[in-house]
Amino acid sequence: MTFSEDQVRARLSELDGWSYDGKDLVRLCVFPSFMDAIRFVGRVAEAAESANHHPNIDIRYDSVRLAVHTHSENGVTERDFALAKEIDRAINIA
Amino acid sequence: MTFSEDQVRARLSELDGWSYDGKDLVRLCVFPSFMDAIRFVGRVAEAAESANHHPNIDIRYDSVRLAVHTHSENGVTERDFALAKEIDRAINIA
Repeated sequence: MTFSEDQVRARLSELDGWSYDGKDLVRLCVFPSFMDAIRFVGRVAEAAESANHHPNIDIRYDSVRLAVHTHSENGVTERDFALAKEIDRAINIA
Repeated sequence: MTFSEDQVRARLSELDGWSYDGKDLVRLCVFPSFMDAIRFVGRVAEAAESANHHPNIDIRYDSVRLAVHTHSENGVTERDFALAKEIDRAINIA
Protein backbone atom coordinates (compact mmCIF):
# COMPACT_ATOMS: atom_id res chain seq x y z
CA MET A 1 0.00 0.00 0.00
CA THR A 2 1.45 3.35 -0.98
CA PHE A 3 1.34 6.40 1.25
CA SER A 4 -0.26 9.66 0.18
CA GLU A 5 2.00 12.67 -0.10
CA ASP A 6 0.67 13.99 3.24
CA GLN A 7 1.34 10.65 4.90
CA VAL A 8 4.89 10.56 3.55
CA ARG A 9 5.59 14.09 4.75
CA ALA A 10 4.13 13.34 8.20
CA ARG A 11 6.41 10.33 8.58
CA LEU A 12 9.63 12.03 7.46
CA SER A 13 10.20 13.02 11.10
CA GLU A 14 10.93 9.33 11.83
CA LEU A 15 13.99 9.62 9.60
CA ASP A 16 17.23 11.52 9.81
CA GLY A 17 17.93 13.98 7.00
CA TRP A 18 15.54 12.58 4.40
CA SER A 19 13.24 14.61 2.20
CA TYR A 20 10.53 13.75 -0.31
CA ASP A 21 10.75 14.94 -3.91
CA GLY A 22 7.23 13.91 -4.87
CA LYS A 23 8.37 10.47 -6.00
CA ASP A 24 11.24 9.21 -3.84
CA LEU A 25 12.47 9.49 -0.30
CA VAL A 26 15.81 11.22 -0.83
CA ARG A 27 18.90 11.65 1.29
CA LEU A 28 22.09 13.44 0.32
CA CYS A 29 25.18 12.40 2.28
CA VAL A 30 28.50 14.22 2.05
CA PHE A 31 31.75 12.60 3.16
CA PRO A 32 35.31 13.77 3.78
CA SER A 33 36.58 11.99 0.65
CA PHE A 34 35.61 10.00 -2.44
CA MET A 35 36.74 6.73 -0.86
CA ASP A 36 34.68 7.46 2.28
CA ALA A 37 31.68 7.91 -0.02
CA ILE A 38 32.45 4.60 -1.75
CA ARG A 39 32.76 2.75 1.57
CA PHE A 40 29.40 4.18 2.62
CA VAL A 41 27.87 2.89 -0.63
CA GLY A 42 29.21 -0.57 0.25
CA ARG A 43 27.44 -0.44 3.63
CA VAL A 44 24.23 0.84 2.07
CA ALA A 45 24.43 -1.98 -0.49
CA GLU A 46 24.65 -4.61 2.26
CA ALA A 47 21.63 -3.13 4.04
CA ALA A 48 19.74 -2.96 0.73
CA GLU A 49 20.59 -6.53 -0.22
CA SER A 50 19.48 -7.77 3.22
CA ALA A 51 16.18 -5.93 2.80
CA ASN A 52 15.90 -7.05 -0.84
CA HIS A 53 15.06 -3.45 -1.63
CA HIS A 54 17.49 -1.31 -3.59
CA PRO A 55 17.84 2.46 -3.63
CA ASN A 56 18.98 4.47 -6.60
CA ILE A 57 22.52 5.61 -5.75
CA ASP A 58 24.22 8.59 -7.41
CA ILE A 59 27.87 9.21 -6.52
CA ARG A 60 29.33 12.66 -7.19
CA TYR A 61 32.88 12.58 -5.80
CA ASP A 62 32.35 12.98 -2.03
CA SER A 63 28.53 13.12 -2.17
CA VAL A 64 26.06 10.26 -2.38
CA ARG A 65 22.40 10.81 -3.24
CA LEU A 66 20.10 7.97 -2.23
CA ALA A 67 16.55 7.74 -3.55
CA VAL A 68 14.07 5.03 -2.60
CA HIS A 69 10.61 4.19 -3.78
CA THR A 70 8.74 0.95 -4.42
CA HIS A 71 8.76 0.28 -8.16
CA SER A 72 6.15 -2.45 -8.02
CA GLU A 73 3.65 -0.10 -6.33
CA ASN A 74 4.79 3.08 -8.05
CA GLY A 75 4.97 4.99 -4.79
CA VAL A 76 6.43 5.21 -1.30
CA THR A 77 5.57 2.31 1.01
CA GLU A 78 6.47 0.94 4.43
CA ARG A 79 9.40 -0.86 2.82
CA ASP A 80 10.93 2.47 1.81
CA PHE A 81 10.77 3.83 5.33
CA ALA A 82 12.25 0.58 6.65
CA LEU A 83 15.16 0.80 4.19
CA ALA A 84 15.72 4.49 4.97
CA LYS A 85 15.97 3.62 8.67
CA GLU A 86 18.50 0.87 7.90
CA ILE A 87 20.53 3.35 5.88
CA ASP A 88 20.44 5.86 8.74
CA ARG A 89 21.79 3.12 10.97
CA ALA A 90 24.60 2.43 8.45
CA ILE A 91 25.52 6.11 8.51
CA ASN A 92 25.57 6.31 12.27
CA ILE A 93 27.80 3.23 12.55
CA ALA A 94 30.29 4.87 10.18
CA MET B 1 43.40 20.93 -23.31
CA THR B 2 39.87 19.87 -24.12
CA PHE B 3 38.96 17.97 -27.27
CA SER B 4 36.44 19.24 -29.79
CA GLU B 5 33.30 17.20 -30.28
CA ASP B 6 34.72 15.79 -33.53
CA GLN B 7 37.95 14.84 -31.79
CA VAL B 8 36.06 13.10 -29.00
CA ARG B 9 33.92 11.16 -31.45
CA ALA B 10 36.97 10.14 -33.49
CA ARG B 11 38.67 8.77 -30.40
CA LEU B 12 35.70 6.79 -29.06
CA SER B 13 36.90 3.83 -31.15
CA GLU B 14 39.83 3.50 -28.69
CA LEU B 15 37.31 2.63 -26.01
CA ASP B 16 34.96 -0.26 -25.44
CA GLY B 17 31.26 0.58 -25.25
CA TRP B 18 31.56 4.29 -24.45
CA SER B 19 29.53 7.05 -26.04
CA TYR B 20 29.59 10.84 -25.87
CA ASP B 21 26.53 12.76 -24.75
CA GLY B 22 27.87 16.19 -25.67
CA LYS B 23 29.39 16.71 -22.22
CA ASP B 24 30.64 13.42 -20.79
CA LEU B 25 32.11 10.16 -21.97
CA VAL B 26 29.41 7.72 -20.87
CA ARG B 27 29.32 3.97 -20.38
CA LEU B 28 26.37 1.90 -19.19
CA CYS B 29 27.29 -1.45 -17.67
CA VAL B 30 24.70 -4.10 -16.78
CA PHE B 31 25.50 -6.93 -14.37
CA PRO B 32 23.81 -10.19 -13.35
CA SER B 33 22.90 -8.78 -9.93
CA PHE B 34 22.88 -5.70 -7.70
CA MET B 35 25.86 -6.95 -5.70
CA ASP B 36 27.83 -7.59 -8.91
CA ALA B 37 27.14 -3.97 -9.83
CA ILE B 38 28.32 -2.81 -6.40
CA ARG B 39 31.54 -4.84 -6.64
CA PHE B 40 32.19 -3.30 -10.05
CA VAL B 41 31.75 0.17 -8.52
CA GLY B 42 34.38 -0.78 -5.94
CA ARG B 43 36.86 -1.66 -8.71
CA VAL B 44 36.05 1.51 -10.64
CA ALA B 45 36.57 3.51 -7.46
CA GLU B 46 40.06 2.06 -6.98
CA ALA B 47 40.99 2.88 -10.58
CA ALA B 48 39.54 6.38 -10.17
CA GLU B 49 41.36 7.01 -6.90
CA SER B 50 44.65 5.84 -8.43
CA ALA B 51 44.11 8.23 -11.35
CA ASN B 52 42.91 10.99 -9.00
CA HIS B 53 40.06 11.47 -11.45
CA HIS B 54 36.53 10.53 -10.45
CA PRO B 55 33.59 9.62 -12.66
CA ASN B 56 29.98 10.31 -11.83
CA ILE B 57 28.48 6.94 -10.92
CA ASP B 58 24.74 6.20 -11.03
CA ILE B 59 23.60 2.82 -9.73
CA ARG B 60 20.17 1.52 -10.78
CA TYR B 61 19.88 -1.97 -9.32
CA ASP B 62 21.97 -4.10 -11.73
CA SER B 63 23.05 -1.21 -13.98
CA VAL B 64 25.84 1.29 -13.49
CA ARG B 65 26.13 4.45 -15.56
CA LEU B 66 29.59 6.03 -15.57
CA ALA B 67 30.16 9.56 -16.86
CA VAL B 68 33.54 11.28 -17.02
CA HIS B 69 34.62 14.77 -17.93
CA THR B 70 37.25 17.15 -16.62
CA HIS B 71 35.54 19.67 -14.34
CA SER B 72 38.51 22.03 -14.18
CA GLU B 73 38.59 22.35 -17.99
CA ASN B 74 34.85 22.03 -18.53
CA GLY B 75 35.27 19.44 -21.25
CA VAL B 76 36.68 16.06 -22.25
CA THR B 77 40.46 15.73 -22.01
CA GLU B 78 43.17 13.11 -22.28
CA ARG B 79 42.60 12.31 -18.59
CA ASP B 80 39.05 11.23 -19.36
CA PHE B 81 40.16 8.82 -22.06
CA ALA B 82 42.85 7.46 -19.74
CA LEU B 83 40.29 6.86 -16.97
CA ALA B 84 37.82 5.27 -19.41
CA LYS B 85 40.56 2.85 -20.51
CA GLU B 86 41.31 1.99 -16.88
CA ILE B 87 37.62 1.32 -16.30
CA ASP B 88 37.46 -0.92 -19.37
CA ARG B 89 40.38 -2.85 -17.91
CA ALA B 90 38.50 -3.19 -14.59
CA ILE B 91 35.48 -4.58 -16.46
CA ASN B 92 37.54 -7.08 -18.41
CA ILE B 93 39.26 -8.35 -15.26
CA ALA B 94 35.85 -8.99 -13.70
